[in-house]
Amino acid sequence: MDPDLSELDSFLDSDGYLIDDDSADSDQRYLSGFDAHDPFFTLYDGENGETHLLVSGLEYGRARKESRADSVSRYSDYDYQYGSTEERHRMLADFLADHDVSSLAVPARFPLATADGLRERDIEVAAETDDVLTTIRAVKTDAEVDHIREAQRANERAMERAETLLREATVEDGLLVHDGRELTSERVRREIEIELLERDHALDETIVACGPDAADPHDRGSGPLRPNETIVIDIFPKSKESNYHADMTRTFSVGEPAETAREWYELTAEAKGAALDAIEPGATGEDVHDAVCDVYEEAGLPTLRDDPSTETGFIHSTGHGIGLDVHELPRLAPGGEELEPGHVITVEPGLYDPEVGGVRIEDLVVVTESGYENLTDYPEEFVL
Amino acid sequence: MDPDLSELDSFLDSDGYLIDDDSADSDQRYLSGFDAHDPFFTLYDGENGETHLLVSGLEYGRARKESRADSVSRYSDYDYQYGSTEERHRMLADFLADHDVSSLAVPARFPLATADGLRERDIEVAAETDDVLTTIRAVKTDAEVDHIREAQRANERAMERAETLLREATVEDGLLVHDGRELTSERVRREIEIELLERDHALDETIVACGPDAADPHDRGSGPLRPNETIVIDIFPKSKESNYHADMTRTFSVGEPAETAREWYELTAEAKGAALDAIEPGATGEDVHDAVCDVYEEAGLPTLRDDPSTETGFIHSTGHGIGLDVHELPRLAPGGEELEPGHVITVEPGLYDPEVGGVRIEDLVVVTESGYENLTDYPEEFVL
Repeated sequence: MDPDLSELDSFLDSDGYLIDDDSADSDQRYLSGFDAHDPFFTLYDGENGETHLLVSGLEYGRARKESRADSVSRYSDYDYQYGSTEERHRMLADFLADHDVSSLAVPARFPLATADGLRERDIEVAAETDDVLTTIRAVKTDAEVDHIREAQRANERAMERAETLLREATVEDGLLVHDGRELTSERVRREIEIELLERDHALDETIVACGPDAADPHDRGSGPLRPNETIVIDIFPKSKESNYHADMTRTFSVGEPAETAREWYELTAEAKGAALDAIEPGATGEDVHDAVCDVYEEAGLPTLRDDPSTETGFIHSTGHGIGLDVHELPRLAPGGEELEPGHVITVEPGLYDPEVGGVRIEDLVVVTESGYENLTDYPEEFVL
Repeated sequence: MDPDLSELDSFLDSDGYLIDDDSADSDQRYLSGFDAHDPFFTLYDGENGETHLLVSGLEYGRARKESRADSVSRYSDYDYQYGSTEERHRMLADFLADHDVSSLAVPARFPLATADGLRERDIEVAAETDDVLTTIRAVKTDAEVDHIREAQRANERAMERAETLLREATVEDGLLVHDGRELTSERVRREIEIELLERDHALDETIVACGPDAADPHDRGSGPLRPNETIVIDIFPKSKESNYHADMTRTFSVGEPAETAREWYELTAEAKGAALDAIEPGATGEDVHDAVCDVYEEAGLPTLRDDPSTETGFIHSTGHGIGLDVHELPRLAPGGEELEPGHVITVEPGLYDPEVGGVRIEDLVVVTESGYENLTDYPEEFVL
């Protein structure tokens, strides 16, 4: 992966851009192309567009092999003595001087102690709050889209395993039962995780929410699953190899749901279609969000656009960018950014009411020159 | 969990201590007692020892229920308008003013933009580099020790599953085979992960390293496992419920190992015993480390203490504190801190040489008033 950093060039009026973080920070991982548990330094030199790493001796060999940096220095190159914060700042200042950098833009969450240490050494440090790297990261290369595609394939197998459990379930005393045991949110979630693990994917959270739980889009769900109620399954795994994410939601009902739930499902499928139709370069995330609101409002259902205080109906945004982070730019929401080819976004309209349950259908698409390509290959079958 | 923050009181010469981070930061999780994916503010008020949270509306209800804070405010209490960094700083300054705080100590990695925003509003912000909260966190309450104990139980079942695979393996063409398929590091690792997952524990990494892989303590291992060679299995899972970690290592050989490996195993068991004997309040982490070095050096084996340039022998420290992070204070290493009752530490001596393989045995113990309690309940059987 070699990202296009030209936007960073035009943004910079400092000598360079510096990140001091571990690679759990996606901007760090993106700029360095390096994966490390402990913080390290990545300098983007605005003068020549080169990237330079400063890492501990422990990481040096791997950084030279694996990172995308033009050069890698190690602490011992600067006679660093472990343990002292002063020494760390002195070493970093020397490293910056070697690259003729005396003014820096840094991320908003750059560590204060490092910034103060550099300022004491007469290096200008300014925190940028424009999310410049996050904006650059929003546009994916073909290789990045392939990583997301691959994560989505694993995601589909995990959804299939969950759906199969629901299909095979029987009803006893008003609860779903599988293999003689109660089928719970926790149990379905575990099966999803195991399927992903077997495919070398990981996840922090999964939503398997039934009935009233499903009516709260932030509830991950718990306890027994019931027939004839909506069951929302939302899975957003990360590839352990590439670190890119996928995201998909399906809603199921084991047995006949209430008439309103069925109407909501059809309306939500229609809203998703309207959102997809609105996706093209030049359209904004807000346009796509509006397309969803239009469908719901025409059907007489509340939306946050129409009524900011509503607690039922369509009560979240339409989608978000996805990549190294689950939630990235652009946002498909009020004020959402203009879409560009290479943006990978989720489209996930939904309706919620504790009286009815929750319905959400989510696909993952990449914006193309002419519109979009749907990266999702999974059926939409509500009633199992 | 209500931590003893008296050390923070005596450390502070500012009005308060502020964290601006999500709960992936263990200091934030510890001080707030709250688990949230997005950054939020925790203020420790040095005047009265109270803790105050400032969170988004989305987190407000949960923060009031789940956090250990004395009060929880939400953004809307300060008429915060989403989207503007300026607004975020204005809101935070107002929140601090409400608590009569005009000078702050903050963690070394506190976000620069927030610090600069507060300084512009005449609030003093000083980054502390003494790891004050990390030092406080090193001493565990009984409840925290119980969380670690519970994670260790899950860990033992995972180790058992791995050991069982090795025991059941047969040898074909010089490789271990199980259920008709090659037994690899990856396969054993996956079984460990699945066992942990079924017990609601997670892990980022596991070491299952054979032969020359095992000779590098940082190699997680890959490829086929072989008989008559050392296989190091090091598991450090986290409870998904409590977020506390456990840690254990065992070394196995399927079939008779080389004579040297056997000697190393016995020596390492002896070194672990010597380390445990050295553990008591008032002893330092360095004392415990020295006890291990003494055993190895007396047997004529190289250690980093004796020869800082050695690449074989005992080439790492003896152990580390463990809790919300896998690696915490105190360190059982040169310069290691004085041990106190409530410190939970690993004791993990080992010997490494590509010609021989690697041997490491690791237990998890809590320092008590009179010595230590071993939290590990797992046999040490080298040859399977």
